[in-house]
Amino acid sequence: MPEEGLFSQLKRFIVGKPIPSHLAYHERLSRVTGLAVLSSDPLSSVAYATEEILRVLVLVGTSALTRATPIAFVIATILAVVVFSYRQTIHAYPSGGGAYIVAKDNLGELPALVAASSLLIDYVLTVAVSIAAGVAAITSALPQWHVSRVELTLAFVLVLMLGNLRGIRESGRIFAAPTYFFVVTILTLIAVGAWHVLTGTATPVPPVEPVQSTGVPLTLFLLLTAFSNGCTAMTGVEAVSNGVPAFEPPEAKNAAATMLTMAVLSITMFLGITLLSHAYRITPSEQETVVSQLARGVFGDRGLPYYAVQAATMLILVLAANTAYADFPRLASILARDRYVPRQFMNQGDRLAFSNGIVGLSVLAGILLFAFRGDTHALIPLYMIGVFVSFTLSQAGMVVHWRRIRGSGWRASAAINGLGAAVTGLVLLVVAVTKALEGAWIIMLLIPLTVLFCRLTRRHYEGVATQLTLRGWQSRGPRHNTVLVPISGIQRAVLEALDYARTLSKDVRAVYVNVDPVATEHLREEWERWTDGVPLVVLDSPYRSLMEPLLEYIEQVADQKPDGYVTIVLPEFVPARWWHHLFHNQRALLIKGALLFKPNTVVTSVPFHLRH
Amino acid sequence: MPEEGLFSQLKRFIVGKPIPSHLAYHERLSRVTGLAVLSSDPLSSVAYATEEILRVLVLVGTSALTRATPIAFVIATILAVVVFSYRQTIHAYPSGGGAYIVAKDNLGELPALVAASSLLIDYVLTVAVSIAAGVAAITSALPQWHVSRVELTLAFVLVLMLGNLRGIRESGRIFAAPTYFFVVTILTLIAVGAWHVLTGTATPVPPVEPVQSTGVPLTLFLLLTAFSNGCTAMTGVEAVSNGVPAFEPPEAKNAAATMLTMAVLSITMFLGITLLSHAYRITPSEQETVVSQLARGVFGDRGLPYYAVQAATMLILVLAANTAYADFPRLASILARDRYVPRQFMNQGDRLAFSNGIVGLSVLAGILLFAFRGDTHALIPLYMIGVFVSFTLSQAGMVVHWRRIRGSGWRASAAINGLGAAVTGLVLLVVAVTKALEGAWIIMLLIPLTVLFCRLTRRHYEGVATQLTLRGWQSRGPRHNTVLVPISGIQRAVLEALDYARTLSKDVRAVYVNVDPVATEHLREEWERWTDGVPLVVLDSPYRSLMEPLLEYIEQVADQKPDGYVTIVLPEFVPARWWHHLFHNQRALLIKGALLFKPNTVVTSVPFHLRH
Repeated sequence: MPEEGLFSQLKRFIVGKPIPSHLAYHERLSRVTGLAVLSSDPLSSVAYATEEILRVLVLVGTSALTRATPIAFVIATILAVVVFSYRQTIHAYPSGGGAYIVAKDNLGELPALVAASSLLIDYVLTVAVSIAAGVAAITSALPQWHVSRVELTLAFVLVLMLGNLRGIRESGRIFAAPTYFFVVTILTLIAVGAWHVLTGTATPVPPVEPVQSTGVPLTLFLLLTAFSNGCTAMTGVEAVSNGVPAFEPPEAKNAAATMLTMAVLSITMFLGITLLSHAYRITPSEQETVVSQLARGVFGDRGLPYYAVQAATMLILVLAANTAYADFPRLASILARDRYVPRQFMNQGDRLAFSNGIVGLSVLAGILLFAFRGDTHALIPLYMIGVFVSFTLSQAGMVVHWRRIRGSGWRASAAINGLGAAVTGLVLLVVAVTKALEGAWIIMLLIPLTVLFCRLTRRHYEGVATQLTLRGWQSRGPRHNTVLVPISGIQRAVLEALDYARTLSKDVRAVYVNVDPVATEHLREEWERWTDGVPLVVLDSPYRSLMEPLLEYIEQVADQKPDGYVTIVLPEFVPARWWHHLFHNQRALLIKGALLFKPNTVVTSVPFHLRH
Repeated sequence: MPEEGLFSQLKRFIVGKPIPSHLAYHERLSRVTGLAVLSSDPLSSVAYATEEILRVLVLVGTSALTRATPIAFVIATILAVVVFSYRQTIHAYPSGGGAYIVAKDNLGELPALVAASSLLIDYVLTVAVSIAAGVAAITSALPQWHVSRVELTLAFVLVLMLGNLRGIRESGRIFAAPTYFFVVTILTLIAVGAWHVLTGTATPVPPVEPVQSTGVPLTLFLLLTAFSNGCTAMTGVEAVSNGVPAFEPPEAKNAAATMLTMAVLSITMFLGITLLSHAYRITPSEQETVVSQLARGVFGDRGLPYYAVQAATMLILVLAANTAYADFPRLASILARDRYVPRQFMNQGDRLAFSNGIVGLSVLAGILLFAFRGDTHALIPLYMIGVFVSFTLSQAGMVVHWRRIRGSGWRASAAINGLGAAVTGLVLLVVAVTKALEGAWIIMLLIPLTVLFCRLTRRHYEGVATQLTLRGWQSRGPRHNTVLVPISGIQRAVLEALDYARTLSKDVRAVYVNVDPVATEHLREEWERWTDGVPLVVLDSPYRSLMEPLLEYIEQVADQKPDGYVTIVLPEFVPARWWHHLFHNQRALLIKGALLFKPNTVVTSVPFHLRH
C-alpha cells in the first residue's frame, strides 16, 4: 500500500502490528518458560488461600485457628488428585483440552455450554480476584493507600486492558520473571521461617487489630466454609493442560512435567504458609494480609526482604490476572466458531476479535471490583462455583472419553479421572451449600443465563443459515435499475452525485420537493444549464414535509417496475473534523432508516469531502 | 401511500399528525384567547415576585419588610414603561418583533447574537423557574411532598417534553383556562383580603418558622438586591409583541390592547399581593410560599378557596413553562435559517426540527433544576440577566429603528423606546452588580460562549458554501465504474448482491480473501455454477487479515483507472429484530470507515432481509 489508510493506522495504533501466519507458532515454550507463563494463576492463589481459611476460623476465636492445618492438608491432597487427573487430559488432548472441548466431545451440548459459561465467568473473576489480592499486597505494605483501594484496582484493570489491546501478550515472556521471583521469595520466606521455628527464635506476630471473638460455635458447617475458602488454592491448575500445543516437542511430555512441577510448588508454598502462620500465631486482619504479617514476623518489620515479598506477590497476581486476557478471547473465539456467541468474537486473523474480548473482560471485571469495593474476601465466594463446575465437567468428560476409546489400561485412566470428578464434584457441592448466600447465588444464576444466551445465539445463526441456502435460487437475470437523486438545490455536491448516478443506469432522475414555488421556478431555470439532460422530477408537498413526498414517489416507481431495483443516490458531506458532523443533517440516515425494510431498494451515499 | 412505512409510523407516534400548509394560520387568536395563550408567563411571575423581595429584606429583620411596598411601586412603574415601549414594537413589527429580529434589523450582528443567546438561555430558565415555583405551590399545600421537590420538578419537565413531542401545542387553547382561573382566584384573594383589612378583621399570619435576624444592616446594596429580585415580575412581558401575527385582524391593534390588559392585570396582582403581605405581616419561609401564607390568612387554613389558589398557581406556572416549549424551537429555527445554529433545528415542514428543540430545552432545564435542587430562589439570579439583556437590546434597537424611518412623530416614539432602553439597561446593571456572585456570573459567561458558538457555526456553513460553489464546475462526462463485491463464500445474500451489482456496471468483480486454501479451492469449484461469468478475484493474506488485502486491491484498481469510480457493493443483513444486530459483523461499517476519505470511492450496502 503506497499510503496507509485511516483504518489501518487506527487499528495499528490500538491493536499493534499484525503477526504473519507463518510466525504464529514460531516460539514454543520450554519447561522453564512454560511454568512461568502458564502457572502464574495457580501459584499466585497461595497468596490468599491460607488467609481465606483463617478468616472463617477466627470467627470462633484465636484457638480455632489451629484447625487451618488439617484443612490445608485435605486441600493439598485434593489438589494432588486434580493434578493427576489433569495430566491424563494432557495426554488425551495434545491439541489443548479445555473443559469446553472435553465436555463437548464426550458429554454433549448442554454440559459443554455449562462448562463454557463457567469458564467465561471464571476468567472474569480471575481478573477481579487477582487484582483485588494484588492491591491488598500493596496496601499491606503501604497502609496509607488503603483508602484508595477501589481506584487502585480499577487503574490496574485499565492498564491491563490497554496493554493487551496494544499487544503486550506477544512479549509476555518478559513477564515470566515475576513467577520465579515470587517462587523464590516465598520459598525463602518459608525456609527462613522454618529455621526460626526449628531454632526456637520465632516470635509471634501481635494482632494488627484486637481479635473479637463473635461467639460463633465451631460447627461442621463452619469448618466446611473454611475448607471451601481454602479451595481457592486450586484455581487455575487447568491452565497447563489447556496450553499443551504451545510447548516444545514432545509437547505432552513437557506439559505433564511442567504440571507436576507446578503442583509440587503450589502444595509446598500453600502448606508452608499455613504451617508458619500457625507457628507465628497470625490472626487475619482487614488492614494487612496474612502473607504480609508473616513476612514481617520472619524478616522483621519493613526491611528489604519484606518489601520483596510484597512486590513479588503483587507482581504475580497482576500476571495471573493477565493470563485471563489471553484465555477469555481464545475461548470466546472457539465459541464464536461454534456459533454460540456473536461472530464479532471470532478470530479471523486481525486482532479485532480479541479486542472485543479484551474490552468485554475488562468491563465485567471492573463492574465486579466496583460493586464489591475491590475486596478479595467478598469476591472469593463468587469465584469458586465456576472453577469447580468446569473441573467436574472436564474430569467427568474424561471418564466418558476413556470408556469410549477403550485403549489399553483404560480402566485405570477412567478410575483416576473418575476420582477427580467425584472429588471436585463434592467440593462443588460443599462450596455451593456454604457459599450460596455469600454471593455464589449470583453465579448460579449467571451460568444458566449464559447457557441460554449461547443457545439463542446458535438458534439465530441456524435460522440465518436456512435463509441463506442456495436451494431453489436462480438469478433473475438483467433487471432495470431506476436511480433517483433527491436534491435540495443545485450545488457542487449534487452535481457530483448526479455524475456518479449516471454511471449506474440510463434511467437517472433528480427528485426535488417543492415547498417554495419561487425557489422551484429558479431551480427549473438553472437546471438545463448544469445537468446535461437529467430529468428533474418536482414533487408537491401539501404538508411542507420533505420526506413523505419522496417516499411516496419511490413507492410509485417501485410499483411501476415491480421486478426492477430502485437506487437512491444521496450526496453526503464528509466533514474535515469529526465534530463538524453536528452541523450537517442526518437526512441520508433518515432516508436509509425509512427504506431499510423495502425490498429491492438500495440507498447509496456519494461522499463529498469538505476540505475544512 | 398504500402502506405506511416504519419511518412515518414512528414519526407519527412521536410527533403527531402533520399539519397541511393551508391550515397553518387557520385559527387566529381573539383578544380573550390571546391574553390567555400569550400572558401566562408574565402573569404567573406575580406568584413569586413579592416573595423574592421579602426574602432579601427579612435578612435585616421583620421591621424591614415594610420596605417591600415602595420597591413594588418602583417595579410597577418600570413595568408600565416597558409595556408602553413594547406597544411601539407591536406596531413597527406586525410580523412579530422578537429581540433577535429587532436587534438584527437595527443594531447589527453582534447585538443580535447577544439578544438571541440571552433569549435562548431565558427560555431554559423560564422552564426551570416556573416549574420550581409551581412545585413550591404544591409543596406549600402538601408539606409532606417537600422532600421530593427535585423529583417532582424533573417529572414535570418530562411530562412537558413528552406532551410537546406528541404535539399538545396544537390543542394549547384548552390550556388557556388556567390563565383565567389564576387571574380570578388571585383577584378574589386580593378583594377579600382588602375587605378584611378595610373592615379591620384581618389577623396577622404567624411566622411558619421563627424569623432569625442575621443582623445585616439595611444598606442601599440590600435594597437594590431586593429590587433586583422583584423585577422577576417583569419577565415574559415581551411575549405578546412576539406573537402579533397570531392575532385576528387588525393584528397590531388587538395585540396592543391585549398587552395593555396584561399589564393592568400584572400590576394589580403584584401590588395587591405585596400590600396584603404587609397587612397580614407575612414573613418568607423555606417551607411555604408567601402566596400560600396569604391565602391561608385571607381564606382561613386549608379550606376549598385556599386549595383553589394553590392549584391555580401551580397550573399557570406549568402553562408558563409550556410557552417556552413553543418559543425556544421557534427562535432556534430562525437562527438555523440564518445559519447561526446547526440546521437540524431548521423547521422544514416536518416537526422533527421542533423535536430537537424540545428535547434540548428539556435536558437543559432538567440539568438546572437538578443542579439547583429545584429551588426557585437559587434560580432567580440566573433568570434576570438574560431577560434584561434582551429587553435593553430590543428597546435600543427600536430607537435606531425610529431614527432610520423618520416617520411622523418619530421623535416621540424614539423617546418612549429610549426611556424603555435606559430603564431596562439600568435594571440590568443593578441586577448584574447585586446578583453576580449569586449565580448570575454563570449567565454572563454563557452568553458570550453562545455567541461564539453561533459565529463558529455561521463560519463553518459559509466555508461549506464556498466549497459547493459551481464556479468552474464541469461534468467530467461518462466515466468508468469498477464494481467490487467482497464475498466470504457463496450464499443467497452474496448472489443477490452480485445480481444488483451487475445492473450498475459491465465491470463487476467478486473479491475473496484466501485465508484457508481448502475453502478457497472449494469456492472456485462452485463459482461457475452459480455466478454466470462474474470474474472472481482471489487475494492472498499473509497476515490472515481480511481487511488489508481488500483495501490494497481497491487501491490498485483506483490506480489503474485514476479517472473512474470504484464502487464496493456489500450484502448487508437487515435483522428482523433490532437486537439481532448484535449477531452480525459490522464489516460494512468498517469498510465504509476505511474508505470514507478516499476520493471517487462509494460503498453501497444491498439489504438482505432476514425473516426471523
